[in-house]
Amino acid sequence: MPLNHHIALVSDQIAMDYLLPAFRARFPQARLHRIDTQVQELDALADIDTVVCWSPPTGLLARMPRLRLIQSVGAGTDHITRDPSLPDVPIRRIVDPEMAAGMNAYVAWAVVHGQRHMAGYIESQRRAAWEESPVVPPGRHRVGIAGLGVLGQSAARALAAIGYQVRGWSRSPKSGLPEGVEAFHGEAGRAAFLAGCDTLVCLLPLTEDTHGILNAELFAQLPRGARLVNAGRGAQLVQDDLLAALDSGQLASAVLDAFIEEPLPRDHAFWHHPRITVTPHIATRTGPEAIARQTEDHLKRLSTPTHA
Amino acid sequence: MPLNHHIALVSDQIAMDYLLPAFRARFPQARLHRIDTQVQELDALADIDTVVCWSPPTGLLARMPRLRLIQSVGAGTDHITRDPSLPDVPIRRIVDPEMAAGMNAYVAWAVVHGQRHMAGYIESQRRAAWEESPVVPPGRHRVGIAGLGVLGQSAARALAAIGYQVRGWSRSPKSGLPEGVEAFHGEAGRAAFLAGCDTLVCLLPLTEDTHGILNAELFAQLPRGARLVNAGRGAQLVQDDLLAALDSGQLASAVLDAFIEEPLPRDHAFWHHPRITVTPHIATRTGPEAIARQTEDHLKRLSTPTHA
Repeated sequence: MPLNHHIALVSDQIAMDYLLPAFRARFPQARLHRIDTQVQELDALADIDTVVCWSPPTGLLARMPRLRLIQSVGAGTDHITRDPSLPDVPIRRIVDPEMAAGMNAYVAWAVVHGQRHMAGYIESQRRAAWEESPVVPPGRHRVGIAGLGVLGQSAARALAAIGYQVRGWSRSPKSGLPEGVEAFHGEAGRAAFLAGCDTLVCLLPLTEDTHGILNAELFAQLPRGARLVNAGRGAQLVQDDLLAALDSGQLASAVLDAFIEEPLPRDHAFWHHPRITVTPHIATRTGPEAIARQTEDHLKRLSTPTHA
Repeated sequence: MPLNHHIALVSDQIAMDYLLPAFRARFPQARLHRIDTQVQELDALADIDTVVCWSPPTGLLARMPRLRLIQSVGAGTDHITRDPSLPDVPIRRIVDPEMAAGMNAYVAWAVVHGQRHMAGYIESQRRAAWEESPVVPPGRHRVGIAGLGVLGQSAARALAAIGYQVRGWSRSPKSGLPEGVEAFHGEAGRAAFLAGCDTLVCLLPLTEDTHGILNAELFAQLPRGARLVNAGRGAQLVQDDLLAALDSGQLASAVLDAFIEEPLPRDHAFWHHPRITVTPHIATRTGPEAIARQTEDHLKRLSTPTHA
């Protein structure tokens, strides 16, 4: 493995400088480049052999003739593969147990925030008003997790440990689900799953099938007054359908962490809707050290002949 | 057991009408009375044999000559026993698995709310501002539960399932703690416990020993910038010490559900402090049906001779 890697930290959505210390420590002899929202080192494209990225600009990676690894900084790769001119270079994701725990915490907070009227209490506090809402115990509230990958299964386990009635839906049948989690799958199981979701948590990967899946037709299959948590991808949500479902009362509230356009534009209706909670795509994140370490592992494996 | 009980629903803090349907269903031949914040049926005092209460007015129960059961609507009885003129009548508490689950949900929300900067995101949303805070994974955050009764042990289990590093403190050693929870006990274990609490959750019962336990001396033993969740009792917190610890930076934030005076007075400093979250004593509650059912059980046992 050459010691003098040219590694580019690439994103058209976020500043990537948070990765610099970890990559400097892990790759002391590498040249580090940035092509992000703050720095545009485009003169180095010909040298770059490794891209570490979140949502790289369309067409950019095709302009890197020496590229041999595309490293996502997250569990998903859809933010990379949507580029139609993507070169034929191995793409790797980050697998990090800390990511699942971070998502557990976010999902637990978001589910309780809606189910237990916490947004209302925060609003009451501004008026110094002691206003109780009904306290419905978790055992009488059904939380449905759409998507039972590593993150979905982990969130299901955490919600069941709190005491929620948990159900899960996945495209294909899953084994090894946490005890007490009711499983549904496929198109055939979809309606029965949705009909029993007092809160629906979306943790689906973004694919052609899940693009726009959170739409009016799906909302109509939930119990009236259901709550939505989207910790999946922004493109899974049809934004106008959400606003209409909130206005009609079909949905009671939504907690959203991912958006079609990030940062969410200042004039977007979601910011000011009284029953939408917006968080800036922070549900979970992999630590810089884990990203640098796993990037190194992936580079080592690429340079080692395998006997597959 | 006489069928024509006179049951009084008593509180000087909350309206007790939420219990009426469950008690009418469970005791169809009983006379139900209310002495609460809305209705004052004081003419019936001589007839009342059963009091179902939250914080009964001092001296009131001594004026009920036929009283034979004092039923708390919660897990605690300190809101009853603080009355110096309390008659010598059996006091019973409610034990309800739904209570533990309700507390789990509250504690999970409150811990994540502080640790993951959720209060800040809610504030940012008002300004339509996309402002990320550092995402520290739960595995690098130590949550300490003070009080390892039914509620404390259950909350410890739920927080560990999310992925937090959980430790617990109790007055005397406890067995059967959830796996992975580090246990401390007694005065000897107190300093070591507190030194490792990035968030401290108080679920202690209110006793002479725990009155005012959340004070400047205790806050000083926590790591600088620690967070506090008080889901115990208001009288455990020294209010001015909390404000001083927040102002000095010794504490970063507090989520409070219980107060010395409830409802919290409109002019109280807690309402408007930017780093205090106030909820109106809703962390958990027992369902009206469970309260009515357990009241009936307790009355039956009182009228059955025992061989103790």
